[in-house]
Amino acid sequence: MLPTIKWDNGKIIMVDQRKLPGEEVYVECTDHNQVAEAIETMVIRGAPAIGVAAAYGVALGIMGLDEKDNLEERFDQIYRRLERTRPTARNLFWALERMKRAFFRERDRDLKKLQKAMLQEALDIEMEDVETNRRIGKWGRTLVKDDQTILTHCNAGTLATAGYGTALGVIRAAFEEGKKIQVYADETRPFLQGARLTCWELEKDSIPVVLIADNMAGYLMKKGEVSLVITGADRIAQNGDTANKIGTYTVAVLAREHNLPFYVAAPMSTIDFTLRDGNQIPIEERDPDELKWIGDVCLSPSRIEVRNPAFDVTPAEYITAIITENGIARPPFQKSLQELRKNKA
Amino acid sequence: MLPTIKWDNGKIIMVDQRKLPGEEVYVECTDHNQVAEAIETMVIRGAPAIGVAAAYGVALGIMGLDEKDNLEERFDQIYRRLERTRPTARNLFWALERMKRAFFRERDRDLKKLQKAMLQEALDIEMEDVETNRRIGKWGRTLVKDDQTILTHCNAGTLATAGYGTALGVIRAAFEEGKKIQVYADETRPFLQGARLTCWELEKDSIPVVLIADNMAGYLMKKGEVSLVITGADRIAQNGDTANKIGTYTVAVLAREHNLPFYVAAPMSTIDFTLRDGNQIPIEERDPDELKWIGDVCLSPSRIEVRNPAFDVTPAEYITAIITENGIARPPFQKSLQELRKNKA
Repeated sequence: MLPTIKWDNGKIIMVDQRKLPGEEVYVECTDHNQVAEAIETMVIRGAPAIGVAAAYGVALGIMGLDEKDNLEERFDQIYRRLERTRPTARNLFWALERMKRAFFRERDRDLKKLQKAMLQEALDIEMEDVETNRRIGKWGRTLVKDDQTILTHCNAGTLATAGYGTALGVIRAAFEEGKKIQVYADETRPFLQGARLTCWELEKDSIPVVLIADNMAGYLMKKGEVSLVITGADRIAQNGDTANKIGTYTVAVLAREHNLPFYVAAPMSTIDFTLRDGNQIPIEERDPDELKWIGDVCLSPSRIEVRNPAFDVTPAEYITAIITENGIARPPFQKSLQELRKNKA
Repeated sequence: MLPTIKWDNGKIIMVDQRKLPGEEVYVECTDHNQVAEAIETMVIRGAPAIGVAAAYGVALGIMGLDEKDNLEERFDQIYRRLERTRPTARNLFWALERMKRAFFRERDRDLKKLQKAMLQEALDIEMEDVETNRRIGKWGRTLVKDDQTILTHCNAGTLATAGYGTALGVIRAAFEEGKKIQVYADETRPFLQGARLTCWELEKDSIPVVLIADNMAGYLMKKGEVSLVITGADRIAQNGDTANKIGTYTVAVLAREHNLPFYVAAPMSTIDFTLRDGNQIPIEERDPDELKWIGDVCLSPSRIEVRNPAFDVTPAEYITAIITENGIARPPFQKSLQELRKNKA
């Protein structure tokens, strides 16, 4: 399996997720601006992976400083550049805040030691993310039974994290313990994370996967061909309202209509305990051309107006459980998420 | 506006809908096999347009016969070839049955007269379809208010009919009487009838249209940006259960979840009074490559398994009203559709 992102002797290397699965191309970043651009242009995507990238971006930024620099001023510039890359994923801000705490903890040491400490913090964030996902998988696999068919939307796999995945981590863990499962992957327009990334990951792991268009999930549920739904998350409010890839809300409505469990798998770092509910989660609207063009084919008349929200919010009432590394939260999430937060402390 | 299909001195001409809006290419058919292939490969699509094409296909088939042929045997071959092109759209079978009645009414006349009568029947079917759609539009526009935003799925417009459209006919009629409306067009994967055809038609008529991915409709409904939904239909059972383009069922579930009216616009010829409910409607599954490829871009790993149902069935309970040329049917449809049927007689 390709590493989504890795540190390599002064630079970070990411597989270009815009080009998978057709081409396996790597992007190298040697400063924080390049990392910011990679996040903005979706070379790397997926809330936990964006968090890891941002952490490395801060580390690269600090490593580029010298003794003459005003450290706090430059840190602030680096922080703000990375902070404005994408608005929705909580993990971006979580990772930046963690790097900020490391910076203020270490800034009085000499620059070389500060730089080393900042890199170590980013390396830790990456390593912990894989471990977190494995724990999510262990909890989550208890919710999956033998012979079940699992629908997932977007890509919440290795490529969306530092490794193993959240929603796909649960699927992997169930598969690894020998459960006979089959996955339906929504293609996930417009960026096609399901068709391009989820299918590619699952095929590599020999997990049976069938690709469908986003608009086919309802048909399959009505025919009784879906047992449960698992998706990732970009930001979860304290009441459990969950922002995730556009279309997730529709899948959740369909799941409830067909009495199917709808699970969200995400690390605690995706939960934004400062937000009362999902109405406060900012939703990014992206370039219309993402919807209009595939390769050099324009899918519509070229001047047509387009809406391109990248995320939607699924109200907590549609969510059966939220699977985290600290355990499984059930409604009311206001209470259960706080309890899991304490488990961590 | 391009004609979807027209008779031209011994051949029928169709705009190749697989290539719109990028290229305006015409396909000419001089025998019924070519027409059957054009229907199978979706050069022409949309239930009423398929019906018109099939009628012309029969006419071309009969026009290709000579005195030595066993007329009934050859008619039967032609009929069966066209009948097996696509299984779901009721209008295909309706048009073939009507051509069959014309054949048995006229077969004892000399061959030239029979041929002329068969062509006239096909020309009548085409002409009547446009008139039917205008009547659907007149009924339907009463359901649309000023300043409303209408979501439509797939293309039920000029290109899906002999002209004017069913769902888009209602939209056109509301627009023509000066109502200020805006349309959201689902792109409609995998064949992209919304992005390619609906946007193109509405732009030509200067009707404001905004393109969205299929998975964005729920987001917009939740934000209060959709007033009502209108779609076409491929086959309606006597109880009102409606087969239409894959994804229609999902839109209907979303509409009910958000308390929005969900209207179906279709000619009486789409209603299959022989079917008790939608479970009996055959659903076509098409070539996986329609989902995997766009132009020369493969969207997923090439060997991935795919499901590609072309239609789904929306149960009558999700449908607010069915708009036909004979009037507007409201639940219970079992009763109201039969009443509209009598209006016609």
